[in-house]
Amino acid sequence: MRTRPLKVALLGCGVVGSEVARIMTTHADDLAARIGAPVELAGVAVRRPSKVREGIDPALITTDATALVKRGDIDVVIEVIGGIEPARTLITTAFEHGASVVSANKALLAEDGATLYAAAEQHGRDLYFEAAVAGAIPLIRPLRESLAGDKVNRVLGIVNGTTNFILDKMDSSGAGYSEALDEATALGYAEADPTADVEGFDAAAKAAILAGIAFHTRVRLDDVYREGLTEVTAADMASARRMGCTVKLLAICERAADGQSVTARVHPAMIPLSHPLASVREAYNAVFVEAEAAGQLMFYGPGAGGSPTASAVLGDLVAVCRNKLAEATGPGESAYTQLPVSPMGDVVTRYHISLDVADKPGVLAQVATVFAEHGVSIDTVRQQGKDGEASLVVVTHRAPDAALSGTVEALRKLDTVRGVASIMRVEGE
Amino acid sequence: MRTRPLKVALLGCGVVGSEVARIMTTHADDLAARIGAPVELAGVAVRRPSKVREGIDPALITTDATALVKRGDIDVVIEVIGGIEPARTLITTAFEHGASVVSANKALLAEDGATLYAAAEQHGRDLYFEAAVAGAIPLIRPLRESLAGDKVNRVLGIVNGTTNFILDKMDSSGAGYSEALDEATALGYAEADPTADVEGFDAAAKAAILAGIAFHTRVRLDDVYREGLTEVTAADMASARRMGCTVKLLAICERAADGQSVTARVHPAMIPLSHPLASVREAYNAVFVEAEAAGQLMFYGPGAGGSPTASAVLGDLVAVCRNKLAEATGPGESAYTQLPVSPMGDVVTRYHISLDVADKPGVLAQVATVFAEHGVSIDTVRQQGKDGEASLVVVTHRAPDAALSGTVEALRKLDTVRGVASIMRVEGE
Repeated sequence: MRTRPLKVALLGCGVVGSEVARIMTTHADDLAARIGAPVELAGVAVRRPSKVREGIDPALITTDATALVKRGDIDVVIEVIGGIEPARTLITTAFEHGASVVSANKALLAEDGATLYAAAEQHGRDLYFEAAVAGAIPLIRPLRESLAGDKVNRVLGIVNGTTNFILDKMDSSGAGYSEALDEATALGYAEADPTADVEGFDAAAKAAILAGIAFHTRVRLDDVYREGLTEVTAADMASARRMGCTVKLLAICERAADGQSVTARVHPAMIPLSHPLASVREAYNAVFVEAEAAGQLMFYGPGAGGSPTASAVLGDLVAVCRNKLAEATGPGESAYTQLPVSPMGDVVTRYHISLDVADKPGVLAQVATVFAEHGVSIDTVRQQGKDGEASLVVVTHRAPDAALSGTVEALRKLDTVRGVASIMRVEGE
Repeated sequence: MRTRPLKVALLGCGVVGSEVARIMTTHADDLAARIGAPVELAGVAVRRPSKVREGIDPALITTDATALVKRGDIDVVIEVIGGIEPARTLITTAFEHGASVVSANKALLAEDGATLYAAAEQHGRDLYFEAAVAGAIPLIRPLRESLAGDKVNRVLGIVNGTTNFILDKMDSSGAGYSEALDEATALGYAEADPTADVEGFDAAAKAAILAGIAFHTRVRLDDVYREGLTEVTAADMASARRMGCTVKLLAICERAADGQSVTARVHPAMIPLSHPLASVREAYNAVFVEAEAAGQLMFYGPGAGGSPTASAVLGDLVAVCRNKLAEATGPGESAYTQLPVSPMGDVVTRYHISLDVADKPGVLAQVATVFAEHGVSIDTVRQQGKDGEASLVVVTHRAPDAALSGTVEALRKLDTVRGVASIMRVEGE
């Protein structure tokens, strides 16, 4: 074993960074044995240097992240600060100055992964980011490597723990969205500003990363259709239950039937209770991968948190260090298929639509005609009358999303339709 | 991209081998793009050369596997013949003659993995074997690489599809073992001679491989405690149901509480219906991995079959070919902890014991005394009387297996105990 240590710079020392530093110290011998050389924490860039950081030598702390990545003796930079800048410039600067990079930065990878990949390749460095998607769950490596000889057709999963906690709470207790969000915040599952989670931005970034890797093409955050869960009501949840379903915020990446394009989307959807994703509780994550030869695989585990994310970061650290010692690099960007990303209207899915309608003869016929005119076939209709008003719950067969949303628009214009109470897609069947 | 192809020799052209050859042809462009060079099937060694093999150039077929691996121009040997010899000699010969190896041979890896690893290292070649455990489910790579920065404490799973099919059938239909085995055979889930599956040899080989990788030590097939499922009765299954459990054949690899040894075992066990493994149906596989930082991860998918196994083989082929082009090798054997494997008696577990006893006062006190004398604490007792006879069902708290089996031995000697109707371990709580 080489005795000269590999030098690691840590950018960011919050929940994840401090756990990475702790494990690097407490498990130093194991890491050295697995890598073939010791690893040494050579510097830690933070915003608040005065904060006491247990177990970290104060001499390693700096506020000058740029100077740290430019030192020239750093073998690996671990970036856990998040956000677009200064993270992007720090990572590309690290590549220029001889370091490989392990990152947990989903936002940056989804926004501008191509720039990072290109810089890594130009300088012959590694860019690893298992921690960017679904915390400790191995997903990037299985998709990039284990399934490299297969053809992935679909990735479908729960990739945001906060929203799964909220929906699980709504489902199990009958609570409304606000109430469930309050509980998630109180328990530390939701941040003070929950926008990134509840509006689906976090899940959309992960969907972009997964779709790009799964289909060997470039998918950016802007390519991902996105709906959050703030509009999901207790009534939707109850309606899902009546159908033998529950509601989950799903990230869905699909290859089109003709194989010539891909789609990526994040939205709430009803899935049958018999589907394995329906039983993913609390803040857990789970992802299905469907591949031509492998069939259907599922990966399940804690999708966030300091320790699980640190586990993913350290797994990448070991790989990157081994590559350094072998003077090799791992897999880089694979975007050779150049498959375009189609808009949401092209996605083929099913709708569950609740309508408030006038309780008089002929309404159902009128509504059914609108579906037929848009080429949307109806699977089931449930009609309930109450005091001159009635509700119609329609579940469609599979149709392009554009046809489905066109149907809803036309329904809204019918005199006999008083309102569209809810629209939700149905998946996992 | 390099235009000169990498040459692949295929040893074995059965269910898996023919599927590997088929995908290599139909997906040649994708494989080339992902590897960075085309791959070419340069020879196929078979036992029956006269058999028609669709899509394979007859000129590539040979019965002389030794000559094929000795050719000197082969970059990668794919070994899917199984068994100890001639597979072992062919693999080590391949390493000597410049090839890296992708193998699906669980029996050989569990029996003598160390010899293969040593030969690979001596000649600077790769040895990859994702397909040896749980078919298409990425497990070896996540354990060897994704969790390389973590400390795995436990691996627990269903790793044999045939036995899971049989137990699932017994559970859902109330069928006995023989009847369920007949159905598995009729549907092609069990082989004509089902010994390797039903006696647990196949699962034990996988447990040895998983334990070795998870704990960075050497674990051989002989180190794995093994009980098959041929003794599991419809009555056991019914008894499990009454406890809110089902019966699964589990492979369990554990680090001892003091961290100084490991255990590996395969046996039928009761697990609660609420445990995710309880809902693994038919011939599917699923494996839980518990690691210090990552927490609890689960991997699920088809555990066998031509296509899923071929997916795993081809993922390894891509990795090994990339390494060849980079003149590097992937991770080799990691057995630095040298943790010993403890015998079954040291495993801490729980027992579910059904006793036929005389229906008279004092029997329960007598039985309870035997448990106490062996230091085994009782969790629950259920007593049922019928016509002068009675049955006692005892579920214990956790205790060393030696103490539990000592208790059972002593119970058999009691005059008031007419017989021990069944003993089963209880896991997953």
